[in-house]
Amino acid sequence: MPPAPVYIAGAALTSFGKLDTPLVDLLAQAAGAALQEAGLSKVDSVYVGVMNAEEFTGEGNLAVALADRLGISGAASSRVETASSTGAGALETAFFAVASGYRKHALVVAGEKMTGLSTSQTTRILAEVIAGRERAYGASMPALAALIAGAYAEAHGLDRKTLSRVLCRVAMKNHARGALNPYAQFQKELSQEKYYASPLVADPLRVFDCAPITDGAAAVVLSSQNGLVRLAGMGHATDSAEVARRGSLISFNSTRQAAMQAYAMASVNPEDVDFAEVHDAFTMFEVIGSEDLGFFAPGRGWRAVLDGETSAEGRIPINPSGGLKARGHPVGASGLAQVVEAFWLLVGKVDPKRRLAREPQVALTQSIGGLGNNNLVTILVPASRPLYPAAPWQSSFTPVIHPPRPAPSAQLPKEISGRLLSATLLQRPPEGFPAPLGLGLAETSQGWATLAHFNGEEPPRPGASVSLTLAENGLYRLKAEKSLERPLRPFRRWIRRLKGALGAYRDE
Amino acid sequence: MPPAPVYIAGAALTSFGKLDTPLVDLLAQAAGAALQEAGLSKVDSVYVGVMNAEEFTGEGNLAVALADRLGISGAASSRVETASSTGAGALETAFFAVASGYRKHALVVAGEKMTGLSTSQTTRILAEVIAGRERAYGASMPALAALIAGAYAEAHGLDRKTLSRVLCRVAMKNHARGALNPYAQFQKELSQEKYYASPLVADPLRVFDCAPITDGAAAVVLSSQNGLVRLAGMGHATDSAEVARRGSLISFNSTRQAAMQAYAMASVNPEDVDFAEVHDAFTMFEVIGSEDLGFFAPGRGWRAVLDGETSAEGRIPINPSGGLKARGHPVGASGLAQVVEAFWLLVGKVDPKRRLAREPQVALTQSIGGLGNNNLVTILVPASRPLYPAAPWQSSFTPVIHPPRPAPSAQLPKEISGRLLSATLLQRPPEGFPAPLGLGLAETSQGWATLAHFNGEEPPRPGASVSLTLAENGLYRLKAEKSLERPLRPFRRWIRRLKGALGAYRDE
Repeated sequence: MPPAPVYIAGAALTSFGKLDTPLVDLLAQAAGAALQEAGLSKVDSVYVGVMNAEEFTGEGNLAVALADRLGISGAASSRVETASSTGAGALETAFFAVASGYRKHALVVAGEKMTGLSTSQTTRILAEVIAGRERAYGASMPALAALIAGAYAEAHGLDRKTLSRVLCRVAMKNHARGALNPYAQFQKELSQEKYYASPLVADPLRVFDCAPITDGAAAVVLSSQNGLVRLAGMGHATDSAEVARRGSLISFNSTRQAAMQAYAMASVNPEDVDFAEVHDAFTMFEVIGSEDLGFFAPGRGWRAVLDGETSAEGRIPINPSGGLKARGHPVGASGLAQVVEAFWLLVGKVDPKRRLAREPQVALTQSIGGLGNNNLVTILVPASRPLYPAAPWQSSFTPVIHPPRPAPSAQLPKEISGRLLSATLLQRPPEGFPAPLGLGLAETSQGWATLAHFNGEEPPRPGASVSLTLAENGLYRLKAEKSLERPLRPFRRWIRRLKGALGAYRDE
Repeated sequence: MPPAPVYIAGAALTSFGKLDTPLVDLLAQAAGAALQEAGLSKVDSVYVGVMNAEEFTGEGNLAVALADRLGISGAASSRVETASSTGAGALETAFFAVASGYRKHALVVAGEKMTGLSTSQTTRILAEVIAGRERAYGASMPALAALIAGAYAEAHGLDRKTLSRVLCRVAMKNHARGALNPYAQFQKELSQEKYYASPLVADPLRVFDCAPITDGAAAVVLSSQNGLVRLAGMGHATDSAEVARRGSLISFNSTRQAAMQAYAMASVNPEDVDFAEVHDAFTMFEVIGSEDLGFFAPGRGWRAVLDGETSAEGRIPINPSGGLKARGHPVGASGLAQVVEAFWLLVGKVDPKRRLAREPQVALTQSIGGLGNNNLVTILVPASRPLYPAAPWQSSFTPVIHPPRPAPSAQLPKEISGRLLSATLLQRPPEGFPAPLGLGLAETSQGWATLAHFNGEEPPRPGASVSLTLAENGLYRLKAEKSLERPLRPFRRWIRRLKGALGAYRDE
């Protein structure tokens, strides 16, 4: 008994940016346009993706408010949330409802209204998705993303300058596409000068490495009956809440597992994908995503960026919409906005200057929830593509799934030695922490890892031996130990550069 | 292509009450027990129902936190919310995932941690589900429930004394069952004296008419493979956000529509149901629910209570668990806790003193989201019951669905006359409102209805002619007009009593 096929019968976006419209009106605006395209005035199910309307806007019960606002009170309506991948989470939920055969049409609407609060309030609300133990260190989303960026550079032998070049290129590439996208928050190209002039948020991440705070909504109508595009593959996986528990800092298990599921369901492989919308809330994440999705081997994503392989003219265009970076990132909406973009490009419903070089047949979207721990991958194909492949499908995608690190014992040791995995200076830490806040991530001699604070304006070097001391507040503080390696430092830099030049294949 | 059947392979509750356990641990405790009963250490999907963990506990990303805490990181995990029916909403979502064939096993976990905040903070958070326009009047959930109770009494000719007798009986019945339930927050019978001695919250509702503030969690494992009970019917419908827009105050469209869907999917009728768990966040709602679900004709539910038809020994036992009233009401959990209770009674997994007189074959649960605007109905049968009925099913359930009232024009009239539908005095209104707060609901001469404030300690009589004046704060204030009806008042009371005695059938 195969499930019912699930088509996209209509799709729409509001413009993204700082908008005066209340959230429910944003949602209704996108929904109304998608319903109109689908030629429907009613649906039997509504799925509303909002991440945290209660705290951002003081309004709850959004599922009801939206159905009411659309004049379709009566329709079953539910709110779905998977942190910053909420839009994709709502899509998956609706997909199952239609695939089950119990629902013929489902309206998926996702949005967020974020600009009503101050940046510090918004940052606090967004940080609620971070594991409590790591939030206690003052870790915000940019801080953790910065630690991941640093670890990536270390693992793949990139010096800081090369890393910055890569991140700048991602930002410039996405802003260039945003400049063409009438829905984008930033419809302006980004120059190298402007990128480097923008302040550091948490080194190596600058303001232009981080997606903005945005209002906006997206909507898609799913149907088991008809539509120009079919949802051919859906994947969804989680990872540990604490970043320190991850077996790998430089890839996301959750993307890899979600991708495996989606490829298998759609019977396609990474090399069949013609373009992708990849979650670039931080520029680094786009690079990691491009590897986790199998477009490039681990450790080759950064070079592909420099080589232009992910540009609109490249081998595998990534974020033709401008991505979260330039289109904007209303946290609840982004995962669904990606799907709307993929739909539009597949059916050619974009301005000619936005078209891709080759007419696409397979599109992929990847959305990250939280700090890479609730990720979804969706594969879209034209409805004309046969439901079942002519020949048995052979997967070419066999990523490593990294087992988690051990947890520390409940009684944390007062002193323990370890090795620094990554470090950053967070320029604007949450209230109650000194600025800048020195945050390191260290692997202890017992195998578990932890965040730790450090003093000073110069982060210790990844790979350094450190001693960790439990402070009275229950948090670790780290100190780099004087080591014999120190005199080797200049040589290490040469070795890193060499490895970088060779594009060393290293999956950690 | 029929959908896959969906069985319950395991079910569990935590104890309900004021608990010191953090939310994620409560969820994990229920989930662990349900997984153990199902004989599973892994599942491919997790659905987490929490209504507002962010504001109640300051924690987000619960879907990830739970999977992590259970040691099943990797599993797809989503959070679902439908206001106070969230537990049932999460169940429905998981049901579709399993019915689609894409998921074999899904874990549904629902809970809330509410007692960490003050009652006034909790009331404020719960009120976020109320439509903004009605919240502006200081309407809280108990205030709106009180207006509905008053309207019910007026429509069905119950004087206030009889109404109180009915509500007291519901509370006593449910507390008597709670006294037998080891999971219940209140394991103590309630005496008539104690009920009447409890303070008014919003007349006619007393403290013992309202479900308490509770911590707790429930879990269910769904499987397309096996289980002792099958989810045979699921229904879900919404209604207008504003209570004043409802075509009927004394029945819930959303329950009626959800029930129709569930009965049709399960091919059963109200008279086939052996017992039901009905959402009694307010005692009045259980009575209305018993009518909306077709157990009693409209206007007969109150008499059925007095006649003991809904007691454990009656024709259709309602809330054998003790209901939300006595078991407690962790808002995210309740809709799923009902299903756990239904499962346990169907499979006989309860203390002999909790068993029902007849061995049940069909159970029904009904959960209310918000103020009756996001309701779900679930029908459970033993797995041995055939998937398809031997003979074509004939529905005996044909409830009226009330079309909404018209909306007022954007420019509200400054003065308008109308008729009072219901009125109450809210004893502890939200901050910024005078106590007690006089709240009325009036139908205007233009057909639309609105909340309105009134002065004085004595609410005007429903049915009274009123004049409505728009105050400077944009809210209506009402005044009862001296009318010719006044001298008829004593006679009206006799007529009401007479109608009550006859149990007049009136569906408005």
